[in-house]
Amino acid sequence: MRMFDVIKHKRDGLELTDEEIEFFVKGYVAGDIPDYQASALAMAIFYKGMNARETGTLTWQMAISGDTCDLSPIPGIKVDKHSTGGVGDKTSLAVVPIVAAAGCPVAKMSGRGLGHTGGTLDKLESIPGFSVGIEQERFFEIVNSVGCAIIGQTGNLVPADKKLYALRDVTATIDSIPLIASSIMSKKIAAGADAILLDVKCGSGAFMKTDLQAAELAKAMVAIGEEVGRTTVALISDMDRPLGLKIGNSLEVMEACEVLKGMAPEDISATCLELAANMLFLAGRGELALCRKIAKEQVDSGAAFEKLCEMAEAQGGDSSVLRDFSRFPQAACTREVRATQSGYLFSMNTEQVGTSSAALGAGRETIDAGVDFSAGIALAKKTGDYVEEGDLLATLYSSSEARLDEGERILREAITTSERAPVIPPHFYARVDANGVHWLH
Amino acid sequence: MRMFDVIKHKRDGLELTDEEIEFFVKGYVAGDIPDYQASALAMAIFYKGMNARETGTLTWQMAISGDTCDLSPIPGIKVDKHSTGGVGDKTSLAVVPIVAAAGCPVAKMSGRGLGHTGGTLDKLESIPGFSVGIEQERFFEIVNSVGCAIIGQTGNLVPADKKLYALRDVTATIDSIPLIASSIMSKKIAAGADAILLDVKCGSGAFMKTDLQAAELAKAMVAIGEEVGRTTVALISDMDRPLGLKIGNSLEVMEACEVLKGMAPEDISATCLELAANMLFLAGRGELALCRKIAKEQVDSGAAFEKLCEMAEAQGGDSSVLRDFSRFPQAACTREVRATQSGYLFSMNTEQVGTSSAALGAGRETIDAGVDFSAGIALAKKTGDYVEEGDLLATLYSSSEARLDEGERILREAITTSERAPVIPPHFYARVDANGVHWLH
Repeated sequence: MRMFDVIKHKRDGLELTDEEIEFFVKGYVAGDIPDYQASALAMAIFYKGMNARETGTLTWQMAISGDTCDLSPIPGIKVDKHSTGGVGDKTSLAVVPIVAAAGCPVAKMSGRGLGHTGGTLDKLESIPGFSVGIEQERFFEIVNSVGCAIIGQTGNLVPADKKLYALRDVTATIDSIPLIASSIMSKKIAAGADAILLDVKCGSGAFMKTDLQAAELAKAMVAIGEEVGRTTVALISDMDRPLGLKIGNSLEVMEACEVLKGMAPEDISATCLELAANMLFLAGRGELALCRKIAKEQVDSGAAFEKLCEMAEAQGGDSSVLRDFSRFPQAACTREVRATQSGYLFSMNTEQVGTSSAALGAGRETIDAGVDFSAGIALAKKTGDYVEEGDLLATLYSSSEARLDEGERILREAITTSERAPVIPPHFYARVDANGVHWLH
Repeated sequence: MRMFDVIKHKRDGLELTDEEIEFFVKGYVAGDIPDYQASALAMAIFYKGMNARETGTLTWQMAISGDTCDLSPIPGIKVDKHSTGGVGDKTSLAVVPIVAAAGCPVAKMSGRGLGHTGGTLDKLESIPGFSVGIEQERFFEIVNSVGCAIIGQTGNLVPADKKLYALRDVTATIDSIPLIASSIMSKKIAAGADAILLDVKCGSGAFMKTDLQAAELAKAMVAIGEEVGRTTVALISDMDRPLGLKIGNSLEVMEACEVLKGMAPEDISATCLELAANMLFLAGRGELALCRKIAKEQVDSGAAFEKLCEMAEAQGGDSSVLRDFSRFPQAACTREVRATQSGYLFSMNTEQVGTSSAALGAGRETIDAGVDFSAGIALAKKTGDYVEEGDLLATLYSSSEARLDEGERILREAITTSERAPVIPPHFYARVDANGVHWLH
């Protein structure tokens, strides 16, 4: 078999055989197939796509290209959750303890933030002492005793995706549904869960700008789950507005605690409860309506909040900050951003809000940089709210006045005011499972 | 400027700016742009194409990426000729002396054969002593005294094309009209001629299988000529049958001599005269009808044949072989291939005929291999001829019986016999100039 022919077949719109896809992934990881052939194939896939079988095979071959995680030492159905990334998306911090409190184990590997989106690991590390670098044996122990744990990636998981993603990133071949879907799903499959819940974001703060694009990606990922025998459900949720009011690391931990205490804004609370209910559904806890009830009970009873504190302690964290936010390290400088005119907040470019938060210090510019745990944005108003001139729009937290200047400049650019009230998007657009897309609005 | 954006713009079907194309060519030759980005761009161009301005700019930037040839020490309008390659295509060997005999200087750089097609340099070197490796000063001297010379490429001409072609060859991005056109034309432009005649082949022995594909390529190359200010005309000629009856190196030199002596088969004679007439037309010698007359006179008077002998002597060759073919080194083994059934020769896969000749030793398998000057095929019959069982189809020449076996096997596979007579294609399908395509049939 020659890579030349694999490229030519896809170039001409043919289906690649399973053998061709395996030949490509194995050869590329081994270094036998050079980057310049892989990028030509990626560009051909960008134009010609891949069907469900091809995408499933690509995903599976990538998933088994390195180490894979065997979660069998943990009894029960293990459900994983993945979000395609957004601004203010602290759902994992609340959803994982809700599901664990309901008796379903969650052994989760998460990632770090980059660019305008935050990462769960960075947020957790804002809890003093919290460790995400835990050996596998101890990881399983914590999940089996506490019910949940969230750690960084261990071992050499999915080297094919690491290499291919880095190549796609510099060859304008990221925006391909089968390539995005296989990249995400290969990591989830290698991480070992029995079932997968996907939270596909759409809107100005998400990679997918429209609900139709998001539905295409969701369908492709659910189809991969079918192909490889891991039940997968995707929710398409709104990221046209930041989720909740807090953006940053410790700021988002605080808001996740508020969700678990029943004190958070409606959008973030509703989103977390629906995600948790769907994870319970995938874990076989019954009909979705029942699962919604179970999830809500974990919050109302305080069990979920206690579960988060337990997990933090088990992973070396000081859970007292979760009970008393004033014990979190505080930002050196703060600034109140106020409205310069009256009117409706008509739109808020959510990617720019994320960029503002990153400029304040909450995000990292390069993969090796650190983050400022206390930096970020606490919004006082969101899209759809009416404001009078002089009203507080947001409070910014950072380490210097210069960073506050930059963060404020970017945040102000993101906001459009109007005399007209905007249409507020729903929390969820659709639920996608093996039976298809079920639009919810 | 970032190469990422150049790729993305073309990927999305946008026109690239002149600055973007210059950035790519300069950066790629300098090694600042890696192969994996160049191949992604090539694949995007494969799908999205390039307009005349983009193709012209790409061609020009490639043409000036290395040394360029300045032909100004040679007085007069210098016309170059390029054939897209075929089997039995010895036209340069006859056309160049015809044009020179008519008083128009020809300073030509040619290439070597690879795969199923032969190369002019290999054919010339079958004349004992003939040198194609001549320094530029002496090259000009010969053109100014004799009227013509044919040498190999000197200096570092068009390094951008060398690098990009090698990359396209392994990434399935050869078959793109703007990339093929810019590759051919960049070399012709760097070689310094004032005007260019293109012989675009079509049919089973050519890269372009149909006349419409050939017309697309011809139009693209003529448009490039317009963009960069070099008058260009293209003829679309048949390569569904081998040109003439002889395929091989010394065999083709012999047939070129027969053309110049007025003793060659009609197809190769007519083709050479039409090409020569068009070169004279481009050199400003008058209307095409007059140029046809001038070309024919050079053959009829014997002036063109004497010009070939003069050129051979000037380049160190023993011209006595041209006057007495028995003085050419002879092949060690010969074989007569005879018809096993009666009927019309319905079709002859010309690419396979070329492959047979290469297998006999006339071609090279790798770029560094040598060729057997005396090896090849002398056809006795061509497509359209009626043969009786036992009639001679061809005589094969080679260095061993094993090679003859292989050559015969491939040749027999190439031939289809039928009770029905086939339609014989015309010598020329079309003439393409700045005014468009003029179909001739």
